[in-house]
Amino acid sequence: MKNLTSNISRPKYDYIDSSVLDKLESYDHQLSKAERIPDQDPYSINGQKLRLNFIRSTLNLDMDFISGEKVFNNNESLKGNIENYIGMSQIPTGIVGPLVLNGSAAQGAFYIPLATTEGALLASYNRGAKACRECGPITVITLQEGVQRTPTFKFKNLIEAGKFSSWVMDHTETFSALTRESSNYAILNDVNVNIEGNISILRLEYTSGDASGQNMVTICSDRICQFILENCPIKPVFWTIEGNFSGDKKISPLNTRVRGKKVTAEIVLKEEIIKSVLKTTPALLYEQWRICVSGAKKAGVVGSGMHPSNGLAALFIACGQDVACTGEASVAVTRMEIIENNDIYFAITMSNMIVGTVGGGTSFPTQKECLELLGCYGAGKSGKLAEIAIALCLTGELSIFAAMSSGQFTAAHQKLGR
Amino acid sequence: MKNLTSNISRPKYDYIDSSVLDKLESYDHQLSKAERIPDQDPYSINGQKLRLNFIRSTLNLDMDFISGEKVFNNNESLKGNIENYIGMSQIPTGIVGPLVLNGSAAQGAFYIPLATTEGALLASYNRGAKACRECGPITVITLQEGVQRTPTFKFKNLIEAGKFSSWVMDHTETFSALTRESSNYAILNDVNVNIEGNISILRLEYTSGDASGQNMVTICSDRICQFILENCPIKPVFWTIEGNFSGDKKISPLNTRVRGKKVTAEIVLKEEIIKSVLKTTPALLYEQWRICVSGAKKAGVVGSGMHPSNGLAALFIACGQDVACTGEASVAVTRMEIIENNDIYFAITMSNMIVGTVGGGTSFPTQKECLELLGCYGAGKSGKLAEIAIALCLTGELSIFAAMSSGQFTAAHQKLGR
Amino acid sequence: MKNLTSNISRPKYDYIDSSVLDKLESYDHQLSKAERIPDQDPYSINGQKLRLNFIRSTLNLDMDFISGEKVFNNNESLKGNIENYIGMSQIPTGIVGPLVLNGSAAQGAFYIPLATTEGALLASYNRGAKACRECGPITVITLQEGVQRTPTFKFKNLIEAGKFSSWVMDHTETFSALTRESSNYAILNDVNVNIEGNISILRLEYTSGDASGQNMVTICSDRICQFILENCPIKPVFWTIEGNFSGDKKISPLNTRVRGKKVTAEIVLKEEIIKSVLKTTPALLYEQWRICVSGAKKAGVVGSGMHPSNGLAALFIACGQDVACTGEASVAVTRMEIIENNDIYFAITMSNMIVGTVGGGTSFPTQKECLELLGCYGAGKSGKLAEIAIALCLTGELSIFAAMSSGQFTAAHQKLGR
Amino acid sequence: MKNLTSNISRPKYDYIDSSVLDKLESYDHQLSKAERIPDQDPYSINGQKLRLNFIRSTLNLDMDFISGEKVFNNNESLKGNIENYIGMSQIPTGIVGPLVLNGSAAQGAFYIPLATTEGALLASYNRGAKACRECGPITVITLQEGVQRTPTFKFKNLIEAGKFSSWVMDHTETFSALTRESSNYAILNDVNVNIEGNISILRLEYTSGDASGQNMVTICSDRICQFILENCPIKPVFWTIEGNFSGDKKISPLNTRVRGKKVTAEIVLKEEIIKSVLKTTPALLYEQWRICVSGAKKAGVVGSGMHPSNGLAALFIACGQDVACTGEASVAVTRMEIIENNDIYFAITMSNMIVGTVGGGTSFPTQKECLELLGCYGAGKSGKLAEIAIALCLTGELSIFAAMSSGQFTAAHQKLGR
Repeated sequence: MKNLTSNISRPKYDYIDSSVLDKLESYDHQLSKAERIPDQDPYSINGQKLRLNFIRSTLNLDMDFISGEKVFNNNESLKGNIENYIGMSQIPTGIVGPLVLNGSAAQGAFYIPLATTEGALLASYNRGAKACRECGPITVITLQEGVQRTPTFKFKNLIEAGKFSSWVMDHTETFSALTRESSNYAILNDVNVNIEGNISILRLEYTSGDASGQNMVTICSDRICQFILENCPIKPVFWTIEGNFSGDKKISPLNTRVRGKKVTAEIVLKEEIIKSVLKTTPALLYEQWRICVSGAKKAGVVGSGMHPSNGLAALFIACGQDVACTGEASVAVTRMEIIENNDIYFAITMSNMIVGTVGGGTSFPTQKECLELLGCYGAGKSGKLAEIAIALCLTGELSIFAAMSSGQFTAAHQKLGR
Repeated sequence: MKNLTSNISRPKYDYIDSSVLDKLESYDHQLSKAERIPDQDPYSINGQKLRLNFIRSTLNLDMDFISGEKVFNNNESLKGNIENYIGMSQIPTGIVGPLVLNGSAAQGAFYIPLATTEGALLASYNRGAKACRECGPITVITLQEGVQRTPTFKFKNLIEAGKFSSWVMDHTETFSALTRESSNYAILNDVNVNIEGNISILRLEYTSGDASGQNMVTICSDRICQFILENCPIKPVFWTIEGNFSGDKKISPLNTRVRGKKVTAEIVLKEEIIKSVLKTTPALLYEQWRICVSGAKKAGVVGSGMHPSNGLAALFIACGQDVACTGEASVAVTRMEIIENNDIYFAITMSNMIVGTVGGGTSFPTQKECLELLGCYGAGKSGKLAEIAIALCLTGELSIFAAMSSGQFTAAHQKLGR
Repeated sequence: MKNLTSNISRPKYDYIDSSVLDKLESYDHQLSKAERIPDQDPYSINGQKLRLNFIRSTLNLDMDFISGEKVFNNNESLKGNIENYIGMSQIPTGIVGPLVLNGSAAQGAFYIPLATTEGALLASYNRGAKACRECGPITVITLQEGVQRTPTFKFKNLIEAGKFSSWVMDHTETFSALTRESSNYAILNDVNVNIEGNISILRLEYTSGDASGQNMVTICSDRICQFILENCPIKPVFWTIEGNFSGDKKISPLNTRVRGKKVTAEIVLKEEIIKSVLKTTPALLYEQWRICVSGAKKAGVVGSGMHPSNGLAALFIACGQDVACTGEASVAVTRMEIIENNDIYFAITMSNMIVGTVGGGTSFPTQKECLELLGCYGAGKSGKLAEIAIALCLTGELSIFAAMSSGQFTAAHQKLGR
Repeated sequence: MKNLTSNISRPKYDYIDSSVLDKLESYDHQLSKAERIPDQDPYSINGQKLRLNFIRSTLNLDMDFISGEKVFNNNESLKGNIENYIGMSQIPTGIVGPLVLNGSAAQGAFYIPLATTEGALLASYNRGAKACRECGPITVITLQEGVQRTPTFKFKNLIEAGKFSSWVMDHTETFSALTRESSNYAILNDVNVNIEGNISILRLEYTSGDASGQNMVTICSDRICQFILENCPIKPVFWTIEGNFSGDKKISPLNTRVRGKKVTAEIVLKEEIIKSVLKTTPALLYEQWRICVSGAKKAGVVGSGMHPSNGLAALFIACGQDVACTGEASVAVTRMEIIENNDIYFAITMSNMIVGTVGGGTSFPTQKECLELLGCYGAGKSGKLAEIAIALCLTGELSIFAAMSSGQFTAAHQKLGR
């Protein structure tokens, strides 16, 4: 067996470079001072203008498409994104923040666009963002990256499957070379084999630059499979580019090691802010979290979050992400503890944060505007987007736990929902 | 213990009324003859007009908002759906079909609006719809309905939790009455209790009319909890409206009995159509499905679908559904068999199809247009929407299995994707 | 649909009769004063005699087979339990306790026989039992009972499956009657139907008296299926007595509602005992538990126990239980909290405690001796055995959490293991 | 990061050495001709003698302990295996076979001892063994090996956890050296890190020679942890030798990559044998399997076997294995297909076959006799035992699927069970 070491962009376990840790430690919270987004007049024309003016003056962005001042008319740009086109669905979009992060890729204050029709959603995330902002930045680290395809080959019998698998593992360097030929961005990061009787499943793991990568890894994997079919002396009786072992657009009960980016985030919440902003107490907040984790476990729910999918779906729609990945991306491990001074430690970890800042739907007018609002449009920004996304989920989890712990949840939905 | 029989709208197991079965059996396939949506010029202005004209002439709908001819300006209508509003995100939307159903709620031919930026998605679903249409209608049945809240109470000890639980089960008729007072639509369909040490989790299950129901059942459950807190002699040391045991916006490895609507669908695909439309053979198609179910099982994936979330996310965005529910809704059990005449039997079952045709985002301009396109806007239509949604997933699963079985998958994404 | 109410022995949710709660509340801890089993000379002939003498004098039991003084020679008694018999495997067996319970079925002090070859296992459970004994009885409640068979029928299509299911649900009273004819002990407690495409799975749930019940429910279900096949006008194309939906001898990620008996247990551990007996502190103990529950969740492990299977396997071997059920029975939800006075609240809940005190291997010589040691031989004792079993697991979990929290775990295994 | 390549005994993916494949291909079925174990008089003294004589004459083993002719009296040998000893539990034991294997470690004909009190169990496995024997050997391959410990460290914050993790991954060669010093058998095969907020979980994976290895890897991991605690500049606020992330004695919904040994087995069953021995047809057998896999999936059951735990528990009791591991070991993926000539292809794969042939309970008298019966006593035999174990499970699955497919299941249990 040859190894892929020379081509590996990242280790296949949680790893943080020391330069990243230095960067995080030298973060100066003063630099992220930022004004709160105006939240009066939640939906009126006046309130809308207030917020648009704030964005325009503070961030120097125009937001002319999302505001409705410009209308989409560039049908040619739709190529590769849709067929049987009839027009544009329009989703109400608001903004929360700033969310203040000290992240390995995202440092500073961010205003987050969210597209949704669920009343109280933005108000809740905005409250969580405020509580976090007043307690210091949310620390975020990207731990792993990888997108998988799992081509599957079936043979006459187990012995043939075994021979095939050995041949494959002797050619991983060729697969790396084929990957480089097939894509400017994809890097083949790992190859392994899973045998079950006469079936051999390859698990090809790539990094995909700043694209979410599902199409890119399909193309590279197909190239590798064609090479195998032509050159391997052991011929399959059946093969497929994907044997449904990659977890693409589905949820595995085990948080898989990584799909897209694995990110983790934490914050320490001061008792006074828990009381003044979140209107609860550390004891109630902790009890709520504890009961909800226990409930999820008893119900067999995957992950221990309450509603990360609410924030993620809204962010994904606004930012041109693949919304069909919301389910897998929103699997979250949350953890809360009461620590010294009656403060609360709160952490959230998400292994399947599959986002992109190039390709997909990122270049359409409103999507581009929303990504620019985050400073996340284009090459080199996908890590930043992933870290903002998990921080957003942290604030949403915090806010719902707080609301439920003190009985405000129903009232908020009666007031803001329908 | 009193029982809720008098109030129960549905049994708590899969049940099909004989009148429904009669309706399904007397279906006349001729009645659903319908023209295929024009699919030339996938995204150009010309193609867009062609499809809009088709809809306008065939279905007598204007689609002026989705087409961009009218612009949203009714900010007041946003009340209860969003805060911190800045404008509208715009998502490219196309149409596939007709999808022909013989369903317990949806009978006939339907054109399906899908909002997405993933190239090849509509083309793939459209091909699946064609194959199904040429083989007869997709049979669909709604088997169960229910939306849950799981208020959770914690006590000094297990004995107190036991006493509390007994008291609760003696008051279920009162809970039914409180539900009727709190909502015109919600019906309390089941109450049960799960004890774990000193914690007692109530599982309140409702039907919610034609709303997706999450807010409605929160309000009713809060009313019930307030009654319990005031009247039950055993007092909790902590309680919460939701103990994360309901599966709301999350995925359980076990397809829960039902969340929203449980629907099942089937079709028999003729060998000739498999060859001519799907460009594969029954043997290859079956092998692909078999390997993909096996792969999902080995990977611990919940459900045995390939990508129901692709179609559902696109339908949910277009139709004003709660997109954060895409993950739970897209859990699917698929099953394929080769039967007599070398035909293929294909079935799909989805237990968590949580959709609504009133409330939520259903009344916004483009969302209303898309629901009207389906004949699913307003009261009495949620069952129909659920059945269309699963039929859509069936066509998408069929098309991707076919593409992968014959090696077309990568080529299609190279041609239509980016 | 007719209902089974008249025949139901138990509700299908967690339920505790008020008389049981009265009994638990009036428990007098003084009544369970009992001497600790002599634990010196762990394995020598002298130590063995010491313990046998203790049992003989204290409990008036002879234990002549387990001690080796009598040898099995009653081959005729093997009928119905084994084929191709060659002799007896011999498993080293020890005893721990007393374990003091205030249970709905088991009240008092119990000495527990455990058959194992894993060093340190008995020492660890014995230490846990001591800590619990010194803090008061372990409270235990049986919450539900039920054993399932899931006969499965396949039809030409979904409509036939629907008709069949309706017919079945109209005949549940007949099924109850057939059950009474087929068994003196089995009671049919619930019938429901799960449809997936053209397949209809019946879920027949019984109580099985004091037998573990798997054979009993097979026989009753077969009788019901034969009735259905003869009388139902809709004929299946295939049927089977078991469609692998019952969870028999397997593990479901969701703690199923119940299989066998669902039991829950709790105890409050005083800080001083945690320090003096368990050699740790409440803070360390809680931290250990918290990390282990979190680790299990991250690993996708079913349940949140550490090693309930250790104690259960040893108890099941000694007491003639179906050892193949150890996996399903040992799924446990554990929960620990620091409460007032720096005490620890600890609870454990097990939904699949499938045990029997009649039938199976319960009447063989050493098995009968071990059951008699527990006062659990014969009719009317299965609830007691289930409650003792969960209390045993509680002590084992407590002891391992304590050992790991203070770094004693490795040392104990170096000293007592091999 | 240094790598462990120089010390790695096996790759961390499914791998089969070419010499193993050569050995399997050159297998001569004639060499495994063996007489069937006499199965008349299932339990009488006469039948017992017949079988003992067969073993004694054919295999030249005395079996004096299991037969009851010799009585255990070597209490000193109990050291390290039990505390609070009172005597020996006796479990009825029979024998099935021969089971004919062409395995990477086990080639030839094997008679299998099974200790159980479940009537019909041996008869069923024996029938499966006969059907397999008449169709050719069962092919078996060991694909991976590994036993894990997952020490867990908690820090002040995420940045500290990150620094710690980097330090750890820089010292893996030292960990390898410490492992070699701590054990003559353990080899550290992999180290990785999982970070979640301020928690860092190490996953140390070892091979453990021919011991099942749980104690061995605890001791080595403790040594490594002590080194880390003394030398790493970043100090944890809490640590534990095991964070419940290893899957030890529990079940994960995802078949973990490996725990113990990962083995896979296959056989092609001829139609005539299916009819004559298994009393069913290929079509019925396949339909039964298909429905049972589908049922398991719907029920959320881990794995797709019916009852591997039946055979494994009986084998583990007889052979001195850790019976508490039955749950994890019995997770199985099964797969059946109808192939050319109406034959059946049947495969089974088990990832967690954790067995040992040294240490644990392997040296007690009856256990040693049973291991010798298999040619599996002592060093160098654990792979052989693992392969025999999975082949046993294959025969049991085959027999139960056959019995259920043709309606014999209930009758067999009525006749042979109680």
